[in-house]
Amino acid sequence: MTASHSPILDRIAGPSDLKSLSDGDLGALATELRREVIEAVAVTGGHLGSSLGVVEMTVALHAVFDTPRDKLIWDVGHQCYPHKILTGRRDRIRTLRQEGGLSGFTKRSESVFDPFGAAHSSTSISAALGFAVGRDMGMETGDSIAVIGDGSISAGMAYEAMNNAGAEGRRLFVILNDNEMSIAPPVGAMSSYMSRLSDGPLGKLGKLGEGLEARLPGPLRDHARRARALVTGHSAKSGTLFEELGFDYMGPIDGHDMGQLLAVLRTARTRATGPVLIHCCTVKGKGYAPAESSADKYHGVSKFDVASGAQAKSRPNAPSYTKVFGAALADEASRDARIVGVTAAMPAGTGLDILADRYPARVFDVGIAEQHGVTFAAGMAASGLKPFCAIYSTFLQRGYDQVVHDVALQNLPVRFAIDRAGLVGADGATHAGAFDIGYLTALPNFTVMAAGDEAELMHMVATAAAHDAGPIAFRYPRGEGTGAPLPERGQILEIGKGRIVREGSDVALLSFGAHLGECHAAAARLEAQGISATIADARFAKPLDRALIRQLLRHHKALITVEQGARGGFGAMVLHDLANDGLLDGRCQLRTMTLPDRFIEQAAPDAMYADAGLRSVDIAAMAAQAMGRDILAARR
Amino acid sequence: MTASHSPILDRIAGPSDLKSLSDGDLGALATELRREVIEAVAVTGGHLGSSLGVVEMTVALHAVFDTPRDKLIWDVGHQCYPHKILTGRRDRIRTLRQEGGLSGFTKRSESVFDPFGAAHSSTSISAALGFAVGRDMGMETGDSIAVIGDGSISAGMAYEAMNNAGAEGRRLFVILNDNEMSIAPPVGAMSSYMSRLSDGPLGKLGKLGEGLEARLPGPLRDHARRARALVTGHSAKSGTLFEELGFDYMGPIDGHDMGQLLAVLRTARTRATGPVLIHCCTVKGKGYAPAESSADKYHGVSKFDVASGAQAKSRPNAPSYTKVFGAALADEASRDARIVGVTAAMPAGTGLDILADRYPARVFDVGIAEQHGVTFAAGMAASGLKPFCAIYSTFLQRGYDQVVHDVALQNLPVRFAIDRAGLVGADGATHAGAFDIGYLTALPNFTVMAAGDEAELMHMVATAAAHDAGPIAFRYPRGEGTGAPLPERGQILEIGKGRIVREGSDVALLSFGAHLGECHAAAARLEAQGISATIADARFAKPLDRALIRQLLRHHKALITVEQGARGGFGAMVLHDLANDGLLDGRCQLRTMTLPDRFIEQAAPDAMYADAGLRSVDIAAMAAQAMGRDILAARR
Repeated sequence: MTASHSPILDRIAGPSDLKSLSDGDLGALATELRREVIEAVAVTGGHLGSSLGVVEMTVALHAVFDTPRDKLIWDVGHQCYPHKILTGRRDRIRTLRQEGGLSGFTKRSESVFDPFGAAHSSTSISAALGFAVGRDMGMETGDSIAVIGDGSISAGMAYEAMNNAGAEGRRLFVILNDNEMSIAPPVGAMSSYMSRLSDGPLGKLGKLGEGLEARLPGPLRDHARRARALVTGHSAKSGTLFEELGFDYMGPIDGHDMGQLLAVLRTARTRATGPVLIHCCTVKGKGYAPAESSADKYHGVSKFDVASGAQAKSRPNAPSYTKVFGAALADEASRDARIVGVTAAMPAGTGLDILADRYPARVFDVGIAEQHGVTFAAGMAASGLKPFCAIYSTFLQRGYDQVVHDVALQNLPVRFAIDRAGLVGADGATHAGAFDIGYLTALPNFTVMAAGDEAELMHMVATAAAHDAGPIAFRYPRGEGTGAPLPERGQILEIGKGRIVREGSDVALLSFGAHLGECHAAAARLEAQGISATIADARFAKPLDRALIRQLLRHHKALITVEQGARGGFGAMVLHDLANDGLLDGRCQLRTMTLPDRFIEQAAPDAMYADAGLRSVDIAAMAAQAMGRDILAARR
Repeated sequence: MTASHSPILDRIAGPSDLKSLSDGDLGALATELRREVIEAVAVTGGHLGSSLGVVEMTVALHAVFDTPRDKLIWDVGHQCYPHKILTGRRDRIRTLRQEGGLSGFTKRSESVFDPFGAAHSSTSISAALGFAVGRDMGMETGDSIAVIGDGSISAGMAYEAMNNAGAEGRRLFVILNDNEMSIAPPVGAMSSYMSRLSDGPLGKLGKLGEGLEARLPGPLRDHARRARALVTGHSAKSGTLFEELGFDYMGPIDGHDMGQLLAVLRTARTRATGPVLIHCCTVKGKGYAPAESSADKYHGVSKFDVASGAQAKSRPNAPSYTKVFGAALADEASRDARIVGVTAAMPAGTGLDILADRYPARVFDVGIAEQHGVTFAAGMAASGLKPFCAIYSTFLQRGYDQVVHDVALQNLPVRFAIDRAGLVGADGATHAGAFDIGYLTALPNFTVMAAGDEAELMHMVATAAAHDAGPIAFRYPRGEGTGAPLPERGQILEIGKGRIVREGSDVALLSFGAHLGECHAAAARLEAQGISATIADARFAKPLDRALIRQLLRHHKALITVEQGARGGFGAMVLHDLANDGLLDGRCQLRTMTLPDRFIEQAAPDAMYADAGLRSVDIAAMAAQAMGRDILAARR
């Protein structure tokens, strides 16, 4: 593919170059920028739809505000591709999400134009308020601007931030990027409310908009006039919700109309004394027909052909863990009417869409609201239902207190299906599921499992469905399964019992979770070195299979625990258990293999695990070293 | 003190006995019930103010609804004393918060009338919605009613729940108990908004209130008429915020007027088809003059004299850790203008009030909003400020994802002052600070400290103030310090260095945190048995003082780690470290002493630690056992 002709964009080395462009040229720049985004993502894959929706907004924000002194904070950050192109990273934009390349999100370590990185949603207003306080206390920073989507602003955290920002009353800009679409269509009463605001007959520009209408193009001028009249006649009780929270409200405006954007942003920048919310309506996937006409607006795409929009989806070798979970749960649900599913805005990502297709009334999408989702599930469990709360490991961190306080303490049988456990690939460190083993095994009453392969995952779904004694969690990785033959139906596992999957005599590899395959590969490597390895699949980090562990200890010279998680998890529980029985006596050498004590940068998952020192070569080397042998020479 | 005469209350064995009472008798019952609450809390201490504010509401709710089939869920739960008295627990009400006695909060294991326990705030609407779904799916449950204060409803989690409940549209009752007071006066824009609602000229009863006014007493009748007119003339855009979120809104009503309460609750119960919010204005401490006139409305009191209200505050032997922290921080702040404090609705509880008294503009009370508070602090840190985020261990769980994603991943120097670490006494298991060591040491970039005594705490405040390299946390317990002499000013500790505090030769006790005193007592016990103990204060769980640990290992027959936290924390990090250096060779016996794998019920902290097997006798016994000696006979 040949790069398009981009005469204006080619002259932009950074945002300061936008200051000299006419408004007309800024509009033309947006057209070139959109083209560049499409062509880059066609090569790399990535979050295309979100980025296309904010092209004009990105140009206008950098034209009006003074970045990087002014702090522009993109919520979630996956809509930042045009921003990266304009802020000196155009030459690397075709490395997006690749190993060693640009992050698919904003990232402080990547550029001074990314003052606060993201990837999880709804953090931008909090961070922007932090910078605003810094400015007011004399730090070297200008204005702060948060750009947040209608899905993200519905989350509790964003509400907390607006509540605080409205009361603080500091000068602060929040751009509401309202495309009525997050990853899935947004849900919840707040989403309906915003739709009413944007669909209604009255665009409101608020007090800040006075005098603005003369400068506005097109039909918005009428809206502004009527809005002013409305504002004048309104008591404090009947403003928009944002006004109730102490914000000046401007909008809704057309977020693809450069004239409107520039006029409103310039007015806001000139006049604001307190917090201002600017409501911009945009179209996800704007300006690229295949994206606009797609159901998910090309939220996340693989490499694609620009002309046709056809994505180069690789053919899977095995069904994904996510699909296996979704199908297994739907199957269990067909036999047990008490099973329900809870997702926080991720029906397809979690596989709960399979259950929703069969039993729509039994899946609850609570929106980006993990705190509520967990306690809502706890309430359902207390009523006698069997909720499966399907949340990615990294996002369950958002509901941790609820897991502790509402689920574990009350010993309620909520089932946690923890997808994206371990390292996840292109989404990088922000999405790694690194900490759940530790933060769940620490909790009394919890049962914690991890699936060695997708057949095991089916057993764990069945086990969780049958487990009414208390909370239970099972974790499994992102991506394809191993191709293990799938049973007709999952079996109910005995709680706290692992299994030997390979008999050996020298060293025992005790695997918790989906690194079971790496343990097999390690055993083969060890065998080539004359070391005979037993492999056990622990299945449970809690309760531990203490008999199995002691058996392994007695019959091997070394015991290596292997898990796809940080220290303080499965290996730690094994060590605690053995220490307190006085079994760390040196007769069997113990080693724990975990994620290292650093965040692992984006790459293919295998490459990330290689970086982490957690591939079969590493396991084999550790086992040999524990045996007093050095097979490091055999590495890689 | 002689018990008051309570002719009606004496006849109430449970809520079903309320059904036969006249409205007048229900009013009289409330008077007796209030008296009983005051007399009981005078004996036990506890959350008096909140309970006094809901006496009439409690009677009215149990009179109108059909508990326990209907699920009455008290948010936070500390206002539940009248509820406990009415639901069969009057005979035990003078055991509130005592060892073996009634919990100071609602608790599922205590009564079927407590369908969903609490202690942390803002969970009730989520749980109530869970029960509502259960009811609609055929579970054995009736209506669900959440009672939530104006402070709690301002939190993000409650907003998430309303957002979801409003969209679900299920029949559900939320009673907003608006006393314009949580523990401290509530903050935030939402709080101002609710004040405007209740102070305004118009009480609104919404659609459900039609026809209600004839049954209403007093001035509310006029309000209701005007409200109806207002509703008729209103578009969907200009309802209350609660209506925007899909709730029918009734109120505000006088929450101490039994007639109003009964009329509104009966109407709501008869007519509701979807979610209803009933806005009740109450007075914290109502009906007890010393409470009403106190600044904190007797939120939490010790035993007191009923006639005078004088509380029997015990004379402290040493300043509390909280006050030492607050004073040390204010002192550091006097020398460094970049230091600021963040609290989530706990300015006095955290000791940040001392800083606020000296520098009001440098303390930020974000409300009950730990998620926002942590990221707001991260934003301030990114701007160049030095934020101290002072949050109790148990509440920091609410901001865990923000700690991971916004602080640790970005390596931002947010300082976490973690009060109430370990077991906390009368507040019981829900408030225990059990998990922070594990959930923080797992995070790359973090430095994690614990104070051995209050002088150490001063050093750690100084160390944190000086540490710009990344996030740092220090934990310390609830209550009085040890009486350690306090330095003029804290010293900056070397990161990752512990200290030997007692030289011995047989066994090493490696303490992390405030059990250092118990280690000294254990060493004395061991000495009496002829065992010589070294004591080391680790100071840091991360980074570990690996040289110190190896030195202890080489020179002792046993090494015991001691911490006031769950497994997977400090001891686990020590074991991981030693295992992976091949040092678990049996020459030195390792043991880890942590909180056990169960929740510890309320009692005095010492009694809780005794229950947990974590007092000096237990440490000495463990050390002796690790040495191959049995001094169990010497226990207790």
